Amino acid sequence: MPLASVTALHQIASLMQELPAFDHGSAKAALDRQGRLTKPLGALGKLEDLAVFMAGWQCSPQPEIGTAQALVFAGNHGICAQGVNPYPQAVTAQMVANFEAGGAAINQLCKANGAVLSVIALDLDRPTEDFTQGPAMTEADCLDAVKRGAEAVDADADILILGEMGIGNSTVAAALSAAAFGGDARDWVGPGTGSDADGIVRKTRVVEEGLKRHGNKAPFDMLAALGGREQAAICGAVLSAREARLPVILDGYICTAATAPLHAVDPELLAHCLVGHRSSEPGHRRLIDAMGKDPVLDFSMKLGEGTGAALALGILKSALACHNGMATFAEAGVAEA
Amino acid sequence: MPLASVTALHQIASLMQELPAFDHGSAKAALDRQGRLTKPLGALGKLEDLAVFMAGWQCSPQPEIGTAQALVFAGNHGICAQGVNPYPQAVTAQMVANFEAGGAAINQLCKANGAVLSVIALDLDRPTEDFTQGPAMTEADCLDAVKRGAEAVDADADILILGEMGIGNSTVAAALSAAAFGGDARDWVGPGTGSDADGIVRKTRVVEEGLKRHGNKAPFDMLAALGGREQAAICGAVLSAREARLPVILDGYICTAATAPLHAVDPELLAHCLVGHRSSEPGHRRLIDAMGKDPVLDFSMKLGEGTGAALALGILKSALACHNGMATFAEAGVAEA
Repeated sequence: MPLASVTALHQIASLMQELPAFDHGSAKAALDRQGRLTKPLGALGKLEDLAVFMAGWQCSPQPEIGTAQALVFAGNHGICAQGVNPYPQAVTAQMVANFEAGGAAINQLCKANGAVLSVIALDLDRPTEDFTQGPAMTEADCLDAVKRGAEAVDADADILILGEMGIGNSTVAAALSAAAFGGDARDWVGPGTGSDADGIVRKTRVVEEGLKRHGNKAPFDMLAALGGREQAAICGAVLSAREARLPVILDGYICTAATAPLHAVDPELLAHCLVGHRSSEPGHRRLIDAMGKDPVLDFSMKLGEGTGAALALGILKSALACHNGMATFAEAGVAEA
Repeated sequence: MPLASVTALHQIASLMQELPAFDHGSAKAALDRQGRLTKPLGALGKLEDLAVFMAGWQCSPQPEIGTAQALVFAGNHGICAQGVNPYPQAVTAQMVANFEAGGAAINQLCKANGAVLSVIALDLDRPTEDFTQGPAMTEADCLDAVKRGAEAVDADADILILGEMGIGNSTVAAALSAAAFGGDARDWVGPGTGSDADGIVRKTRVVEEGLKRHGNKAPFDMLAALGGREQAAICGAVLSAREARLPVILDGYICTAATAPLHAVDPELLAHCLVGHRSSEPGHRRLIDAMGKDPVLDFSMKLGEGTGAALALGILKSALACHNGMATFAEAGVAEA
């Protein structure tokens, strides 16, 4: 069934059977083309891999990025009642206003790398519940956020960049990662937006309580219990992009962790997703290793907002500029070895 | 004395006293600005470091990249008589024609990242001498190439991208690196443009012979004895850029190794140079470690031409877009922790 007709969270898993798959024929044709371009095969390293990835998802031996859509989802979290973040929760709305006024890092990086940015604030005045006390969201609230994420995707774009904003959501990322991949809470907790050593201890305790209460649930119940609206919206956007054959660039720890419930259903649900960068937040390295993802960039960034994903977009555009614009040995009259 | 008035190679070293230095005041002002922008200090990782680097060299707390100049120098090498490269030497001129026709990777990457490309073919029909038999260049030839490199620099640009093309020049890179930094020839030799295991053994023997003959010379005599015209031109361009306070992005192994004689004079001569990427050619890792340089990107590329440097330019532009375009906490009305 298509995502639009889903009426309960557990039905989302059955989407998988109908989702488009990577087109190996187009990928093979793209790889053949790479071998004919005026350079030794493999000399453009990761740029060649990215061109082949894009070919397989766009079903074209010469994939292109005309329109790049960037979506930043924002949410507020009941877990802030446990003192997991040094910033006041009002900063989420202040940063959304900053996005709308064009003053944030993600605005500059979308402009510099040619992405059209939309910011979607998800009921900021109605934070989720504190997951140490009960589920963060009802099933209805969670499904609503999944659908709002899905509906925000422009199916006519050529690639989708995802990011997030939400004070407290590095604690949510740790909880979702631990629930999906196991390990101790402390393996997944880091400083986030400026927690000191005491703050990290507090976050770890909070994640442990959340896991004790909700750790053994099915993937989408786990999303509702431990996640937030922006995490649910990211899951919806990832699935909607897949329905439309749009490759996705995920951002750092929080954005990647938001997709952990999809990975728990089936890693194949994330096959069309690149991870734009490896965040310096320690849990991100562990998470992308567990997911088997190789990040495009590794720049010690940890801002969120989609910044690492937007930066990676520029790299993808360069990869396709080479793939589509270079002359072949035959065209250029260059001798092969 | 300015580079233009140098009449003998050994005089180049005395340039150093008059070269402009990094402006710590502008760098400090740029770092202060990073602390006021709407993000936790350090959250943009390497992008913040790059903005501060640019500030110090452009002497401005808000550095900009309007015009980026890319220079690709091409040369031919007598050492090819020793069978160090599987491609025929004619490929150098064929690739120069490809650059001029716009069909090479560097053309696409300059266009995608906004650099103005000039290709300078240095006497391709007159290869240098075989350095296993004598010096590759006379002092006059070497100085001429240094000056041609220097004169090619547009002092009104905001940044300089450097690259090279020359069949056989990964052997030259290994010889210059070993002469400048020591170690066995085999530590510096790799597959280059497609040498197999036998080819690598042959290249290693050739480098050993070159080192035996020329390994203990003064830096610029070493450049003349083991280098080629494109290496000398790169040295000239790096010095000329420094005179004009232009930051430089070096490319991979061959381009970085070309600057080894400058490093041997004084590492400070390369303080305005970034290394655009870490090449997958094994000697490059050793070389940039020895030089204390941290590459911008690490993409398993090994094409040369300036491709890794041009790709890094896009990252620098994104870094400055954030640095100059973001709102401060005060401007955006966002609460600080």
